[in-house]
Amino acid sequence: MTSTELQATIARMGTAARAASSLMAAASTSAKNHALTALARLLRESAAPLAEANRKDIAAAEAAGLAAPMVDRLRLTEKVIATVAEGCEQIAAMPDPVGEITGVKRRPSGISVGQMRVPLGVFGMIYESRPNVTIEAASLAIKSGNACILRGGSEAIHSNLALWKLVQAALTEAGLPADAVQLVQTTDRAAVGYLIASPESVDVIIPRGGKGLIERISREARVPVIKHLDGNCHVYVDAEVDLELALKVTDNAKTQKYSPCNAAESLLVHEAVAAKFLPKIGAVFAAKGVEVRGDATVLALLKDVPQAKLAEATEQDWSEEYLAPIISAKVVKSVDEAIAHINRYGSHHTDAILTTNHPNAMRFLREVDSASVMVNASTRFADGFEYGLGAEIGISTDKFHARGPVGLEGLTSMKWIVLGQGEVRT
Amino acid sequence: MTSTELQATIARMGTAARAASSLMAAASTSAKNHALTALARLLRESAAPLAEANRKDIAAAEAAGLAAPMVDRLRLTEKVIATVAEGCEQIAAMPDPVGEITGVKRRPSGISVGQMRVPLGVFGMIYESRPNVTIEAASLAIKSGNACILRGGSEAIHSNLALWKLVQAALTEAGLPADAVQLVQTTDRAAVGYLIASPESVDVIIPRGGKGLIERISREARVPVIKHLDGNCHVYVDAEVDLELALKVTDNAKTQKYSPCNAAESLLVHEAVAAKFLPKIGAVFAAKGVEVRGDATVLALLKDVPQAKLAEATEQDWSEEYLAPIISAKVVKSVDEAIAHINRYGSHHTDAILTTNHPNAMRFLREVDSASVMVNASTRFADGFEYGLGAEIGISTDKFHARGPVGLEGLTSMKWIVLGQGEVRT
Repeated sequence: MTSTELQATIARMGTAARAASSLMAAASTSAKNHALTALARLLRESAAPLAEANRKDIAAAEAAGLAAPMVDRLRLTEKVIATVAEGCEQIAAMPDPVGEITGVKRRPSGISVGQMRVPLGVFGMIYESRPNVTIEAASLAIKSGNACILRGGSEAIHSNLALWKLVQAALTEAGLPADAVQLVQTTDRAAVGYLIASPESVDVIIPRGGKGLIERISREARVPVIKHLDGNCHVYVDAEVDLELALKVTDNAKTQKYSPCNAAESLLVHEAVAAKFLPKIGAVFAAKGVEVRGDATVLALLKDVPQAKLAEATEQDWSEEYLAPIISAKVVKSVDEAIAHINRYGSHHTDAILTTNHPNAMRFLREVDSASVMVNASTRFADGFEYGLGAEIGISTDKFHARGPVGLEGLTSMKWIVLGQGEVRT
Repeated sequence: MTSTELQATIARMGTAARAASSLMAAASTSAKNHALTALARLLRESAAPLAEANRKDIAAAEAAGLAAPMVDRLRLTEKVIATVAEGCEQIAAMPDPVGEITGVKRRPSGISVGQMRVPLGVFGMIYESRPNVTIEAASLAIKSGNACILRGGSEAIHSNLALWKLVQAALTEAGLPADAVQLVQTTDRAAVGYLIASPESVDVIIPRGGKGLIERISREARVPVIKHLDGNCHVYVDAEVDLELALKVTDNAKTQKYSPCNAAESLLVHEAVAAKFLPKIGAVFAAKGVEVRGDATVLALLKDVPQAKLAEATEQDWSEEYLAPIISAKVVKSVDEAIAHINRYGSHHTDAILTTNHPNAMRFLREVDSASVMVNASTRFADGFEYGLGAEIGISTDKFHARGPVGLEGLTSMKWIVLGQGEVRT
């Protein structure tokens, strides 16, 4: 395809998505739920063709010498298919966000003013590797009454095409427009460039993938972007704290899984408990092979921990998202210093205070400028399912529109409605 | 100032605003209200120096041959000063939006998850002519716990500087950081370019002014923008309608004032009532000198109205924001055609249906994709004061974050809070 043809293709898809979005915005809850339950059924019935398509992607990935963890993320196992099918049914069971009317108040002029929740319109989803995102994005689009244009990774193209055909069939079965969920069928990277520069047909772009992808999209997009770049999450252990709780939560936040964006990457400890707490958590980390990059006080307190992997933290370490068995650690003099450090070096994703002191808990909640702020809980809870959103299309570290895990409501906006009886402005 | 110096100045202001925004986010409601009531008092006490500064701007504008309406918009009359002083007191009397906690729910894991309203951080306000915007923006920034950087029109620079000095004094009197409200003191237009490209220090830009200014900012901004470009507002007169009500509301929407963005620019009439309604509203428009640009049916129905000013509507007329005694008019076959026309040609600002038919009212409310959608009320009500927001910093026709009139809440966002007792993820 020439670049002119590709641009025309993306433009045609945009026009079709815009038309489908009007029908989706007006679609009944029962039609949307019908499509979602049909999709769950079709996924379960299609194990064989999905496996066949997935085998092509796996073979190509292995032939291209992709690293094993990358190949694993491509796999559409029976378990993955069962999980996404169940996800569709869970979204069908959730309340329809569209049409909710809130806060209607009578004004002195006589008019009643309130707000109605409506779909955003068309979103573009740009993602890498994991083909299950195709179904997650499609199902959230359907329930929230949006149309979407999906652009998956080229390495998953056969799997994505097979999944998308099921979405088309489910939409058609429910009497909804098939163009409500479209898939970019070329692996040409220029398609992304055209998609993110089409404000006339795309209302928002949601990228999910590596930092390089997200930086490129943020830089070049001419439409709003819901994104997070980094998850440099902090755990701050306050002066007054239940040490058992602090050990358990810090351990979980860092070591339960190393790769998620809500895993802790930096530990701050108040000087009043540093001598008690740090050797204990240091021993836990040493047992699990977690390297500690600390300031001088941390290193001194950990020097007698058997098998501890220690290094001196550089300035860069305070900003680092390791996604690995490494944690930076610093001793601070006060909750103020902890808050200032987090607001300066953090990525506005998720940060937790562990404390028994109520004023400090409240100050941390109010003053840490992050999408999720926690008291006495593991940062690993920052997740759409754990928050009760049913599903998440992504996590936002922007302050605009949607912060943190973005579910169905993040794919909608509130318009004003005015109900009158012939009132005029004087 | 060289462009390097100017860039450094804007960067310094940004750093100072960022620092001030942390203090403002944590400021007490009483300190913020103290600053607002002090500002109201200082405005009332400063009639003489404000008039003196304003005279310089007026004289320069007249010497430069500015049109009389432009010069009028510059005037800081006693009435304007009294109004903005009263506005500060009204904002002081409003509830503090910051710190509101909503929707806290216990999750199966044991954590409680909810949301807390917090300031956006730093906003940049770019505006033209009317110096009272300086006080409106400053007072909304103070109450919402944000810092702001103001960039008024060069023609109002002396007035803006005089007003801003009062804001500085009020902040200082209340023990709040003076840098919470800064004014760009040079009239060099390059300052705008640096300001809108500073995501590290500015969270959102709010432009208020002509279409040229707003288009330039939308194109060049590297931070989110809250804006509206056009107000092509529609009144649709449905088949089943109270004709008296329709006449009164249509008249008000078009003729109560011609220049506001919420004035009606286009009239759609169902064919079932066209022959009854159009000659009547045509006579009203003729009496007030309003030109009607109609389709063939409209022109035929208005041809016998004495003194009617008629023209055939071109395709361009359906998209036009006249801000003048001109209205486009079209006869439609159904509410569907009306909705489709509005969604195609409108500017997503404010649109009204006049009807006695409940299903049509509900369909219009749901399906018209605009920031404000009205039933049986004049589009002129689309306004922060009329909606009960107390004040507005601007009107947004974007779908993201804030739609329609933007008041204190539009200058905040919701972050997630998690309250635990040591829960960990399993």
